[in-house]
Amino acid sequence: MPDDSPRLDYRAAGVDLDAADRAKKAIKALVASTHDRHTLSGMGSFGGMYAVPGGMNAPVLVSSADGVGTKLKVAFLSGRHDTVGADLVNHCVNDILVQGARPLFFMDYLATGDMDAGVVGQVVSGVARACRDNGCALLGGETAQMPDFYAPGEYDLAGFIVGIAERDALLDGSRTRAGDALVALASTGLHTNGYTLARRIVFDVLGLDADSPFPDSGGTVADTLLAVHRSYLASLTPELERGAVRALAHVTGGGIPGNLPRSLGAGLGARIDTASWQPPPVFGVLARAGGVAPEEMSRVFNMGVGMLVVVAPVDADGLVSRLRDRGEEAWIVGEVVRGSGVELV
Amino acid sequence: MPDDSPRLDYRAAGVDLDAADRAKKAIKALVASTHDRHTLSGMGSFGGMYAVPGGMNAPVLVSSADGVGTKLKVAFLSGRHDTVGADLVNHCVNDILVQGARPLFFMDYLATGDMDAGVVGQVVSGVARACRDNGCALLGGETAQMPDFYAPGEYDLAGFIVGIAERDALLDGSRTRAGDALVALASTGLHTNGYTLARRIVFDVLGLDADSPFPDSGGTVADTLLAVHRSYLASLTPELERGAVRALAHVTGGGIPGNLPRSLGAGLGARIDTASWQPPPVFGVLARAGGVAPEEMSRVFNMGVGMLVVVAPVDADGLVSRLRDRGEEAWIVGEVVRGSGVELV
Repeated sequence: MPDDSPRLDYRAAGVDLDAADRAKKAIKALVASTHDRHTLSGMGSFGGMYAVPGGMNAPVLVSSADGVGTKLKVAFLSGRHDTVGADLVNHCVNDILVQGARPLFFMDYLATGDMDAGVVGQVVSGVARACRDNGCALLGGETAQMPDFYAPGEYDLAGFIVGIAERDALLDGSRTRAGDALVALASTGLHTNGYTLARRIVFDVLGLDADSPFPDSGGTVADTLLAVHRSYLASLTPELERGAVRALAHVTGGGIPGNLPRSLGAGLGARIDTASWQPPPVFGVLARAGGVAPEEMSRVFNMGVGMLVVVAPVDADGLVSRLRDRGEEAWIVGEVVRGSGVELV
Repeated sequence: MPDDSPRLDYRAAGVDLDAADRAKKAIKALVASTHDRHTLSGMGSFGGMYAVPGGMNAPVLVSSADGVGTKLKVAFLSGRHDTVGADLVNHCVNDILVQGARPLFFMDYLATGDMDAGVVGQVVSGVARACRDNGCALLGGETAQMPDFYAPGEYDLAGFIVGIAERDALLDGSRTRAGDALVALASTGLHTNGYTLARRIVFDVLGLDADSPFPDSGGTVADTLLAVHRSYLASLTPELERGAVRALAHVTGGGIPGNLPRSLGAGLGARIDTASWQPPPVFGVLARAGGVAPEEMSRVFNMGVGMLVVVAPVDADGLVSRLRDRGEEAWIVGEVVRGSGVELV
């Protein structure tokens, strides 16, 4: 008598625990490469352990969560998986830097439909590299197999950072004054925002492939759209230590108008001189091909400005000069004014 | 002359910033309801700020990241979105509890295809409720709109917890001894593991709907499969304070064999007396309908055991009694032995 009753196991249902073990082995050395003397645990513990640095008066933890967003789709199309992790880490590092914090540790969440140890290894290599570059331990994370959620070859990637600052060194908007200068630091491109619109224009309207030359650019579509989100930690840490920084704004989703006001005190706005810089060609290509209105461009994309620094007017030229010495493209982009919001002039 | 060039904006591309603002408003009060005197920031800052509690000798941060996994699919099928956030928080709380840490704060990552402020509000209400229940601040998070990633009405949910412990109170396996007793605390059901296999059996093999009565159970399929992952923080904190707990193991993916060894010291394994408890009916239904082998059941599901406590043999009866007084179903389930791995007898 034939037995046609099911004989199911986890693997038949779509979850491959052996593949998960292979993926874990692939990332173990990457994770260990980021650890320092504060890191008390190896991989495999339920939670990662990190000793609170000593010698501080009133330490405050500063934490942020973020994802890579649909920039991941460009990674899928091009088969380049080793940069999106750096995008994620650098985004998170900048998010706590603007409150005056230096990073302690990072955790990632990588969810896939099928577990490809090679792809997982590439993704985590980008996370680990950026963690090392930012002096941040990759303390742990979760790699989830979720069949029926993600298309084959696709994944989502999110991360969480914890940093620390002395309470009296936190940047909370209370130091900014009307008349303060705004210094811009150049972005490397789109960073991690606006990709749903950018992909629509590049792949649907322009009909380009990942390998196509990107218009007005020296590289391919993948080169241009996967340019790594820049971390400003190394360039700005000496400025935070000097104590001259009054506020910082990380220009992410919402652009300058959506992010700068969060960093200014109550009753303060900003005037931005849009003639003070030429946005990189990628933004002009997107605006023209997509017929995107200038105001919409400014609230979706960073337009070439990755970070804004608020300083006393007397400190602005020196700051620009020191930032340039550290390899940043930096310029005075506007000023803090009484009022609210951001005026682009 | 008709102008048929595109006029794109973010909304036309699938990202609705106004909907995102509505979602943010929906969760603002929920987030605030979890804050305490250590929480220095409101929503809207780039990073959340949390003062390191004072008066500790050598504080260690213990951190964990996790997702809800495909239990989310049951939430989608049933339209109940207010419990999965509690699953996530409680899972994370247990993950750091087993290293001896109490939670400080939590961050969530919620990624959707379309941004439905009502659904987002329900999801975050579950996160916030569990944060309050566990005395943990919901310090921030990311809500991402990712069209082309998630099917309409679907989302992924991950989270990240940071807790704290004195360094000399960390549970790291060094206190366990051969002969120690293992005390089990009952789970509420599948908790958050094994759902890809469970859904395959319940929805495909058995052909049930979310509203169908679940076999051998008093409730529906949704009731049974969405039972909230239990937090053992309140029941175990007094035991950690007594100092009698030698190790804890959170029984998640991998079951008892996959998790208990992580908590025992080198050279130690465990013998589990499977006759000491009757797994809840849900596990028998899954095993029979899916034709799942007993060993596979044990490495995919928790089989009714959500947490294992390692104590000296002399302390076991008292522990069971106190845990029962706190409303836990608790029993002596086995012992620590020389060797490695877990023997189910």
